[in-house]
Amino acid sequence: MGKLGIGRLLVAGGAGFLGSAFVRDRLRADSEVAITVLDALRRPTAEEGLADLRDDRRFALVRGDVGDRPLVEQLASNVDAIVSFATDEFVGRDPDAASVVRTDVAGTATLLQAARKFRHQRFLLVSTMEVYGPLKAAPSREEDALAPRTVPAAARAAAELFTRAFNGRQGVPVLVTRSATAYGPRQPLDQPVARMITSALQGLPVPLEGDGSALRDYLFVDDQVGAIARVLWKGEPGTVYNVGAGAQLSSRDLAETILRLCGQPASLKRAAGDGPGWSYGMETRRMRPLGWEPRTTLSDGLRLTVDWYRKNEGWWRPAAAA
Amino acid sequence: MGKLGIGRLLVAGGAGFLGSAFVRDRLRADSEVAITVLDALRRPTAEEGLADLRDDRRFALVRGDVGDRPLVEQLASNVDAIVSFATDEFVGRDPDAASVVRTDVAGTATLLQAARKFRHQRFLLVSTMEVYGPLKAAPSREEDALAPRTVPAAARAAAELFTRAFNGRQGVPVLVTRSATAYGPRQPLDQPVARMITSALQGLPVPLEGDGSALRDYLFVDDQVGAIARVLWKGEPGTVYNVGAGAQLSSRDLAETILRLCGQPASLKRAAGDGPGWSYGMETRRMRPLGWEPRTTLSDGLRLTVDWYRKNEGWWRPAAAA
Repeated sequence: MGKLGIGRLLVAGGAGFLGSAFVRDRLRADSEVAITVLDALRRPTAEEGLADLRDDRRFALVRGDVGDRPLVEQLASNVDAIVSFATDEFVGRDPDAASVVRTDVAGTATLLQAARKFRHQRFLLVSTMEVYGPLKAAPSREEDALAPRTVPAAARAAAELFTRAFNGRQGVPVLVTRSATAYGPRQPLDQPVARMITSALQGLPVPLEGDGSALRDYLFVDDQVGAIARVLWKGEPGTVYNVGAGAQLSSRDLAETILRLCGQPASLKRAAGDGPGWSYGMETRRMRPLGWEPRTTLSDGLRLTVDWYRKNEGWWRPAAAA
Repeated sequence: MGKLGIGRLLVAGGAGFLGSAFVRDRLRADSEVAITVLDALRRPTAEEGLADLRDDRRFALVRGDVGDRPLVEQLASNVDAIVSFATDEFVGRDPDAASVVRTDVAGTATLLQAARKFRHQRFLLVSTMEVYGPLKAAPSREEDALAPRTVPAAARAAAELFTRAFNGRQGVPVLVTRSATAYGPRQPLDQPVARMITSALQGLPVPLEGDGSALRDYLFVDDQVGAIARVLWKGEPGTVYNVGAGAQLSSRDLAETILRLCGQPASLKRAAGDGPGWSYGMETRRMRPLGWEPRTTLSDGLRLTVDWYRKNEGWWRPAAAA
């Protein structure tokens, strides 16, 4: 992968869970790549999570906002492509919508205008399957209408609309990936799978999504970032790609698998009851012609992840106690 | 219309062309209505345009931003419904996308959160047919995918996504109208039909959209605001309504009709050539069960409009000279 001549990347939101995994993967895969991460570093541990890359000459971390146009233009002037993971995701259950809009939508628009100005080769937005809204009769396909039902999902969908508006006549070759629910090592504890695993390891009740019946497509982090890289280099500009395992699992079944892997009784799971309990699912066949398919099964991925949290209590225990 | 018990309205962007026409129409139609207009009044003549309503006790004008949450909440606390025309529409050809997002998207989100907080009976967003993107084989239907191709259209589409996300579980009964191109008396000269008419009346070249072949659905302002009122009181919450004449006319045919009404030769029309020249068109049958249909034909509407500009040179001559 590299025929496109994308050697220098700006990765917005690159200190988050998925973003930092993407950055690590690229640095591992390509000795010539140069990556600049722009991240607001709002999560207290975000900078620390990239500390091991500090001495890598191919890597630079810039603290800043994706809506800061002068800063974005300065960084964009030196790269060939932007990949954006930037989202105001770590707000509460009732986020201030205007604040989410500023990061997700205005930020995306600012990145796009910079990509146009500096004639980038690619702009890739990492979106989410939640833009489809709740699962209907069949798994959602890329051409289905956007029907988000939450403020964060509406913000991602809005960011997608801007991204696609810049394709074609606006002159930016854009790509969009819609990610299934990600899980894996180093996932912060406010995200569902990590919360379940660390609760189970502590022998605490494991919180379900709603009553536990809600379905999700779960995809291991290495497969997520592999797919994003594949779309960046091989995807057709102007196209959206669903990135998932292509299978749905209920929150209850997920919790029971995790409890078993952690050596805990299934009775530890608890209905939350306060969530919407919506199901999401995607058709993922469009990725096949790009030569990508998931490599890690859910049971392998969960085993790897549980092992990692078991061996790295120092990483998450302080957050769990907070 | 009034069975819903919507007696007090907050009209965001109510000093603009469509918004102010809606306000006038409601004040004329309903002696009991109370209307507060929230408008940033960025257009120099906006306040003056509502000056004749200043002494009407049923009307109040507040200068402010739709994204100003404390102000929005203060105003929203005293009304039954919000109708939003607010859009950052008067920016140049290459608008700063982040600024458009702030007004159109963050502003809409702020209004929606206030509507939810104060348990409003309705929230109506006035959107545009441009959210569909260029006309395909058939006129766009309400269930078609959003595919805007410009920054302002993407911003309206994004505002729609937020609006619809607040319907249902979020507890706000929302409505969306997608308006055809509006024309009529008092339209500012930076909008296409008014620009054509005032150019023709001055014997100046009449600018076409692109090469003149681009199709649009044109709807007289009185029909526009009548439809919006009808949707507000009779529409099904959670529903989108196309509001148009249901017919497409080329920019060239429009210009020739206007030139004829102004007593000028057809040769005065000029291809602009710098616009995208995209066509737009909508299927408008969903309005019929609400008991609405256009009352003013295009030729009658254009005649009325040309007459108004002919008789009110004092209103537009200063702007035309600027």
